[in-house]
Amino acid sequence: MKIVVLKFGGTSVGSIERIKNVANIINSYYKKKYKPIVVSSAMSGVTNDLIKKSKEISENFLPSEYDVLVSSGEQIACSLIAARLSHIGIRSRSWLSWQIPIITKGNHKNAKILSIYRKKIFDYLKKGGIPIITGFQGIDVNERITTIGRGGSDASAIMLAKFFKAERCIIYTDVEGVYTTDPNKLKKARKIKVISYEEMLEMASLGAKVMQPVSIQDARLNRINIEVKSSFKKKPGTLITKRKNFKNNKIIAGISSTQNDAKVTLVGVKDKPGVAAKIFKPLSKNSINVDMVVQNVSANGKETDLTFTIKTDDLNRTKKIIEGNKEIKFRKLLLKRNVSKVSIIGVGMVTTPGVTFRMFQSLAKKNINIQVISTSEIKISVLIDKKNTKKAIIALHKEFKLDNQ
Amino acid sequence: MKIVVLKFGGTSVGSIERIKNVANIINSYYKKKYKPIVVSSAMSGVTNDLIKKSKEISENFLPSEYDVLVSSGEQIACSLIAARLSHIGIRSRSWLSWQIPIITKGNHKNAKILSIYRKKIFDYLKKGGIPIITGFQGIDVNERITTIGRGGSDASAIMLAKFFKAERCIIYTDVEGVYTTDPNKLKKARKIKVISYEEMLEMASLGAKVMQPVSIQDARLNRINIEVKSSFKKKPGTLITKRKNFKNNKIIAGISSTQNDAKVTLVGVKDKPGVAAKIFKPLSKNSINVDMVVQNVSANGKETDLTFTIKTDDLNRTKKIIEGNKEIKFRKLLLKRNVSKVSIIGVGMVTTPGVTFRMFQSLAKKNINIQVISTSEIKISVLIDKKNTKKAIIALHKEFKLDNQ
Repeated sequence: MKIVVLKFGGTSVGSIERIKNVANIINSYYKKKYKPIVVSSAMSGVTNDLIKKSKEISENFLPSEYDVLVSSGEQIACSLIAARLSHIGIRSRSWLSWQIPIITKGNHKNAKILSIYRKKIFDYLKKGGIPIITGFQGIDVNERITTIGRGGSDASAIMLAKFFKAERCIIYTDVEGVYTTDPNKLKKARKIKVISYEEMLEMASLGAKVMQPVSIQDARLNRINIEVKSSFKKKPGTLITKRKNFKNNKIIAGISSTQNDAKVTLVGVKDKPGVAAKIFKPLSKNSINVDMVVQNVSANGKETDLTFTIKTDDLNRTKKIIEGNKEIKFRKLLLKRNVSKVSIIGVGMVTTPGVTFRMFQSLAKKNINIQVISTSEIKISVLIDKKNTKKAIIALHKEFKLDNQ
Repeated sequence: MKIVVLKFGGTSVGSIERIKNVANIINSYYKKKYKPIVVSSAMSGVTNDLIKKSKEISENFLPSEYDVLVSSGEQIACSLIAARLSHIGIRSRSWLSWQIPIITKGNHKNAKILSIYRKKIFDYLKKGGIPIITGFQGIDVNERITTIGRGGSDASAIMLAKFFKAERCIIYTDVEGVYTTDPNKLKKARKIKVISYEEMLEMASLGAKVMQPVSIQDARLNRINIEVKSSFKKKPGTLITKRKNFKNNKIIAGISSTQNDAKVTLVGVKDKPGVAAKIFKPLSKNSINVDMVVQNVSANGKETDLTFTIKTDDLNRTKKIIEGNKEIKFRKLLLKRNVSKVSIIGVGMVTTPGVTFRMFQSLAKKNINIQVISTSEIKISVLIDKKNTKKAIIALHKEFKLDNQ
C-alpha cells in the first residue's frame, strides 16, 4: 500500500468552502492510487472559542474536562471532511481517537502519543476507505480523552506516518513552505525545495513558525519525509528529509531572527565554581527560559561578567529573582531590551571554512555591532540591536546567495 | 443510594451564566444527600449551527457522520458543567456515551437506547462523584456514535432513570411545568401539580410541547416519576406519575389545541369493504399522517362520505394522491384549510357522566360549530373553525373549572 498521511491545519479547514477544497485535494491522491490517511485540526477559531468558554467557567478549568471540551473541535472538522468525500462518491469516515484507539501517556493538556493501534485502520484502508482522523488528541489508559501538548495535530500526523509506515507525511497549511527567511519581512526570501531535519529544527526553534520543533524531531527520529505545502495554492512545497537524501549545494539554508529578546548582564560576579548554576537554577524553577549565555574569562581570576538572553516578557521577573538571590554576589546588573538574535543555518557550514568570518564581516560593513555570539555545528547566532534586524537579514541573505532571482 | 436523574435542556445550558446556574441546581441536590446523575443537551443554538454546516457540505450528509457531528454539542455542554462543579468544589466529570457505554440499536439519526452499562457509573457514584452524561446519543455495536431520533435527551434521561432505578427523573426546561392549556394563549391557564402518564401523553401528542410523547411512554412503561420544572425559577413543577399515586379531583386535566390542520372530505364514495384502506394506504406510504377519521353511514347502502384531517402542509400532496388514485371512486373532493382540533383530556371523564354533553353545550352556547368528533377513553377532540379556537378554549377552560383563581 502506498500510504500517505495528509494533515490539514485549522486555516485549511477554516470554512465550508475550504473543507470542500480539502476533499478535492484528498481526492487527487486517491486518484493517483495512494492510500491517504487524513488528519485534521479543528476549524480555525473553533478551539479559541472553546478555550474562551472554559475561561469564563473557571480560571482553573479542570484539565481533564478541558481535553473533552477542546477535542470536540477536531471531531466536527473530521465529520465534515468525511461527509464531503462521501458526497463526491468516495468511501470515507471519521475515526475518533478512542475508536482507533490512539493511546497517550502523560498529563492532560500535555499528553504524548504512546501507540496507535493499526488493525482497524488497516482493515479500513484495505476496503478502499479513506480514514479521517482527529488530530491533537488521544485517550489515556483510563479511556479519558487527552490532548497533545506540543506539536498538536502535526505530532499526530507524524506518529500516524510512523505507525503506518507512510511514504510521506504532507502538512497542508496556510504558507507555501519553508523560506530562506520570513517572506513577510524580506521580499527576496526564497522557498526552500528541500531541507534537512537538523536545519529545519534550527529554523523552527529560531522563529520560523511552520512546524513545532518537537514534531520535526519526531520526524527525524523516525526518518519520516515531511512535505510542507499550501492547501490554497497548487504549488510544490518544502520537503524536510535526511541530509543524505539530497545534494546540498548551499552553504546556508536560511536565516532566522527572533523578536522580543532582552539581554541581562551581571557585572563583577565572583568567579567560583557553581556560580552560574546558582544564578540559573531559580530562573529555571520559575519557567524562565535562558537562551544565549556568554561568560567572559576574568582577567584577575576573581571576577567575571555573565551575559544571557531571555524573553522580554520575563525581564521584570528575572530582575526580581536575581536581586533577591542571596547566594550570588555581583557589582552591577545591566538590563537591555530591544535586542534581536539573527542566525544563519546550514549543514554546509561545518565543511566550509570562513562562514563565521563572512557573517561578521558583512554585518561590520553595515556598522552592525555584535553583542553576543553563540554557535552550533549547523548555525551561528548573533545578538544585535533590534533596530538593525532587517538590515542584518538583507545583508546576510545577499552574502550567502539566498536572494530570489 | 437516593439516585435522582437531572436533565437539562438546551436553553437551560444556553450560556455560560446559565451553566453556572445549572451547577448550583445540581449542588442543591448534592447537599440534600442525593446522588445526582446529570444528563445535558447541547447549548441552545449549537446543534442548529452544526446542522447548518452539514447542509452546506451536502444535502445528503452521511447519517453516520451527522451523528459524529451533532453529538459534539452535548460533549461541550457536559465538559463545561463538570468543570463548573469542580470549580465550586464538587467532584464531577463528563461521561461520553462510549465511555459508559450507552448502547443503541437502529439507524443513525434515529437510534433507540438498548442498554446502559452500570458498573462504571455506579463505582463513580459510590466514590461521591457526580457524572455528567451526554444526552441524545449512544454508540452502536460497531462502536460508532449514534443519535437518538425522537425524544432526544429526554429519552436518555428516562433510560438512565430506569437503569439506575432513580427515585425521580427531573426534566429542567424553560417552562415551569405542564399547564391546563397553553399559557401563552390563555392567561387563566393553571400549572398542573400532578398529572397521569396517560393524560400527559394525550396532552403531549395534542400539542403541549413540554416533552416528546415517546419519552412519556417510556416513563410510563418503566413507572418512572417525572418532574418537569424550570431551571430559571425556583418553583415546583409538574409531576407526571401513575394514576394511583394521586387523588384526582378534577374531571379534566387540561385542554389542548392544534395548529395547521386541514380537513379532507370525499363525497359519494362507493361503500364497499376495503375502500378506506385503499384511500389511506398511499397516504401512509407518502408519510402523510391522517389524524381524525369519520365515515358517515350511507343511507342507501351504496355511497358514503369519508372525512379525515391532515396537516395543512400535506394538503397539496394529499389532493394529488387522491385524485391520482384509480382504485377509488367518489363524486366530489372537498378540501378545507383553517380548521383546528380542540381536545379536553382527563382520566376522570370515563367515570363522570355528561362530560361530552357539557363540552358540546358550552361550544354551542358560543355558536361554535363542531365539524368532526373523535373520542378515546380519556379525551374528547372536536374539529372546529380555526378562528374559533381561542373562544372554544376559554369556554371549555371555564366550564371544567380549570381557570386560575
